[in-house]
Amino acid sequence: MTANNARKVLIIGGVAGGMSAATRLRRLDENAEITILERGEHVSFANCGLPYYAGGVIEERDALLLQTPKSLKSRFNLDVLVQHDAVKIDRERKEVTANTPEGEKTFEYDQLILAPGAKPFVPPMPGAERGLTLRNVADVDAIMAQVQTKPKTAALLGAGFIGLELAENLHKRGIEVTLVEAAPQILAPLDDEMAAMVENHLIDQGIKVVTNDQATEITEDAVVLKSGKQVPAEMVIIAVGVRPDTNIAKDAGLETDQRGGIVVDESQRTSDPDIFAVGDAVVKRDRIDGAPVHIPLANSANRDGRAVADIIVGLAPSNGDGQVRKTAGVLGTAVVGVLGLTVAATGWNERKAKANGREVATIHTHPFNHATYYPGAEKLALKLVYDPKTLEILGAQAVGGAGADKRIDVIATAIAGGLLATDLAGIDLAYAPQFGSAKDPITMLGFVADNLASGVTSSVDIHDLAQKQADGHLVLDVRTVGEFERGNIPQAVNVPLDDLRDRIDEVRELANGKEIVVHCAVGVRGHTAVQILKAHDLAATNLDGGYTSWSAWQRKQERDAQQA
Amino acid sequence: MTANNARKVLIIGGVAGGMSAATRLRRLDENAEITILERGEHVSFANCGLPYYAGGVIEERDALLLQTPKSLKSRFNLDVLVQHDAVKIDRERKEVTANTPEGEKTFEYDQLILAPGAKPFVPPMPGAERGLTLRNVADVDAIMAQVQTKPKTAALLGAGFIGLELAENLHKRGIEVTLVEAAPQILAPLDDEMAAMVENHLIDQGIKVVTNDQATEITEDAVVLKSGKQVPAEMVIIAVGVRPDTNIAKDAGLETDQRGGIVVDESQRTSDPDIFAVGDAVVKRDRIDGAPVHIPLANSANRDGRAVADIIVGLAPSNGDGQVRKTAGVLGTAVVGVLGLTVAATGWNERKAKANGREVATIHTHPFNHATYYPGAEKLALKLVYDPKTLEILGAQAVGGAGADKRIDVIATAIAGGLLATDLAGIDLAYAPQFGSAKDPITMLGFVADNLASGVTSSVDIHDLAQKQADGHLVLDVRTVGEFERGNIPQAVNVPLDDLRDRIDEVRELANGKEIVVHCAVGVRGHTAVQILKAHDLAATNLDGGYTSWSAWQRKQERDAQQA
Repeated sequence: MTANNARKVLIIGGVAGGMSAATRLRRLDENAEITILERGEHVSFANCGLPYYAGGVIEERDALLLQTPKSLKSRFNLDVLVQHDAVKIDRERKEVTANTPEGEKTFEYDQLILAPGAKPFVPPMPGAERGLTLRNVADVDAIMAQVQTKPKTAALLGAGFIGLELAENLHKRGIEVTLVEAAPQILAPLDDEMAAMVENHLIDQGIKVVTNDQATEITEDAVVLKSGKQVPAEMVIIAVGVRPDTNIAKDAGLETDQRGGIVVDESQRTSDPDIFAVGDAVVKRDRIDGAPVHIPLANSANRDGRAVADIIVGLAPSNGDGQVRKTAGVLGTAVVGVLGLTVAATGWNERKAKANGREVATIHTHPFNHATYYPGAEKLALKLVYDPKTLEILGAQAVGGAGADKRIDVIATAIAGGLLATDLAGIDLAYAPQFGSAKDPITMLGFVADNLASGVTSSVDIHDLAQKQADGHLVLDVRTVGEFERGNIPQAVNVPLDDLRDRIDEVRELANGKEIVVHCAVGVRGHTAVQILKAHDLAATNLDGGYTSWSAWQRKQERDAQQA
Repeated sequence: MTANNARKVLIIGGVAGGMSAATRLRRLDENAEITILERGEHVSFANCGLPYYAGGVIEERDALLLQTPKSLKSRFNLDVLVQHDAVKIDRERKEVTANTPEGEKTFEYDQLILAPGAKPFVPPMPGAERGLTLRNVADVDAIMAQVQTKPKTAALLGAGFIGLELAENLHKRGIEVTLVEAAPQILAPLDDEMAAMVENHLIDQGIKVVTNDQATEITEDAVVLKSGKQVPAEMVIIAVGVRPDTNIAKDAGLETDQRGGIVVDESQRTSDPDIFAVGDAVVKRDRIDGAPVHIPLANSANRDGRAVADIIVGLAPSNGDGQVRKTAGVLGTAVVGVLGLTVAATGWNERKAKANGREVATIHTHPFNHATYYPGAEKLALKLVYDPKTLEILGAQAVGGAGADKRIDVIATAIAGGLLATDLAGIDLAYAPQFGSAKDPITMLGFVADNLASGVTSSVDIHDLAQKQADGHLVLDVRTVGEFERGNIPQAVNVPLDDLRDRIDEVRELANGKEIVVHCAVGVRGHTAVQILKAHDLAATNLDGGYTSWSAWQRKQERDAQQA
């Protein structure tokens, strides 16, 4: 059927990036011979849906199977070969060898696209073979088989996004879940004080969380931790991270980094000009600084897969930017829902920014997702990370109710557009009382950034509060007496904001010549109080995020102290 | 209490813009004498919440009253004078005269801020005095008083955002609602084919909609229309638009435009350097082309009010952009929820872009708001309006389920950041199956823009289809036989996509040498079909928005034809 001079494109891996390349290529070149070698039994399955099938939210296994080799043949004239495990690339002969149900076979190519993905990392330990992982449909089948035996307990090793999604879904099935995380906090994309809010929520919802500890052995019915603790676990799932599944690329002499990621240029070309690579198997480029990063996310896999097809057929960039298409860097924007809480992040967190030697300013707010006079408003906690000199936005995090994803998407777009932190105040966002606020949480972040950049106010980080107190600074709580009585920062003095002007002399005496640390519940009243104090010649600064940030983080600190 | 040299700032109007200016000014200047003259009985009320109080969604009237003169005095030391109707500005003496419960009073100022807002326009007609309007708490009290009498019917004159919100809320109270709109379509911010989807929804939900007709008389129990029709209406609400409430400014000789909007510079300064103006009373600047516009929305009122305080105290821009703060232009981003449907828009619609002489390209898509394999996915209809030469994004519209507001906010941010239509494909958006898709609706808009800009494909507008058919072009429906049988475009020929390669000769014959107009349900399969046809040397173009856009618009056309 195909012309003799048709290009032969071979693709290894038939899920996100590989399949995006294949279907795009067909739309651009009806005559190409496109063959996909997929090791597993399924292509184009809904890998991000796997945890929800495990939890019964997605009821039908078939819902996970988005395409079949047959449907891809009839619509896109693709030759999709499942259970074809590509094991060797002969770059000289431009051939790939695969193990197939019918034995070893060899496939020629003009261009080869590698989209082998990443595989779950399983730390070596006794009993590790009892640990399940979650990468594909076969894995979720194995998890479902264990769920059918009605286990009472499960240990989830690794508290990243997939770990949390599985925790939620097993918890919904009535299983007692313990999350075990080697780092001092869950959810590495977040900073510790934001992760603390999520951890508090998980605990309140009945999930056990162990941090700063790790599995050393899996026994018949438990996981033994480094600390000596035993976590009861009829079921064990290991989700501590993934590694590029790239032995075939390394064996072929393609350049890879120390984690095994395939190194590609801005056109997704490997060190062999006829071999491209996309998806979780490749080293991506950080959008903030262009540095190489490993960020295994579906959206860039799809986008880059599409781009490879464009590049193979020689499609020029549509925006007039040069002759050769280039792929964009990645911000690592991600979102997870866990037991009613939405957690989302984009770009760099404060930890990463500091590790990269960047000067960092942060803003913590706790707005409602829409006007509070309209029923059903939910709280959000937002953190903005930016450069205080250039005002460049580096990243943001959100933890809370509905609309957390929206605010992170807006900030990810602002970063893509090069908007400054203060520019956030000037974006025209859609407002109606059930969708937002006339001063949207995004607008407010911009206002606070403006206040800090203008020198109108300053703030102190909750992490630095104890030292401030040790240095003799007064902590002034300007919330109401009722709020203060329901919980407060040790040694804080309560002068409600509306009484502050009348009690300035009392505050002046307590301050004893030192800068006052002011706080309220979230920072808004604190800001007004700081301005009043400064107008009365009292140095003052506002506790960033207020009592809400402090108390969430404090609760985590106390848990850690007990655990130690 | 205040210093003798304290600046005296007088503010006329105590709702969004005026109150934002007042509280910001207090935070920047503890000593200023700040007086607010408010004509009504309430300040800082939730004007965007009024329709929902009318509908009982917001149950307590007190929830609408966000601040009181007392609370503003104790927190911000503001002198808020309600029932103070400012009637005259003496610019020479820098004084304002107001009618007050205690008679006429005069107030001095160093700086005056005008935030009088806009008032509902009531077209002159017999019986107009029976028509209620909705601007403030007193208005909603009057509406509630009528609602208590359990009217069976209501006519809403004007089908803009407020008209639709009221329609929803009265409908929820069991009142038979008729919306009457003088224009050929409801919701002027949308283009006609997008508005048609909303109109169809309203009708399906039991609201009567009359377009292209207008009230000429309000009788005791009905509204008489120009067409002669009578709309039963025990209750009549007029919401045909607002006009700047600026007689006081005009009388003082301040520059206004032909609609009465106060003309201000980029620092919100009027033609008198000591008088500023913000909010619905002023002429704003369009963010797309800088032209003067009337866009009465709360977010820019608040933002500009804050900025005026900054300018009065001489705060330099925090981003280093010059010495004097300037306010941003407006995009008019807005959202409305109506009986389960979310409708949002930003920037220019196609109509406005064409009226402004811009070359315009449009993209219509009908994606789901999140992965379809996760339960509860809802459909969105998106329209992107951009310049096909420069790829500048001019605007966007969304009609659909949850997440419509998110996509419009992302596009509004993209416009603020100067991203091109094709750049939408490269934004890293947060994805998990309950929040979005690995190829988000925004990503897909970028892909389609890229396809059009690259010349990979082309599209035809549903408005131009009839002419295409009249010119003898084949309309090829590539949906399944079942979809075709459930409804189709007259004279369209059905060849399901998966059969197309085998039936190329048949199609070639039907095309008769002319470009084929291909369509599917939404445009995705149509795109693949166009590529197949082109590969077989058949000219083909894709119907933008597919059968979904066409059929919604067609339904409106048929209604209009019946009505005529």
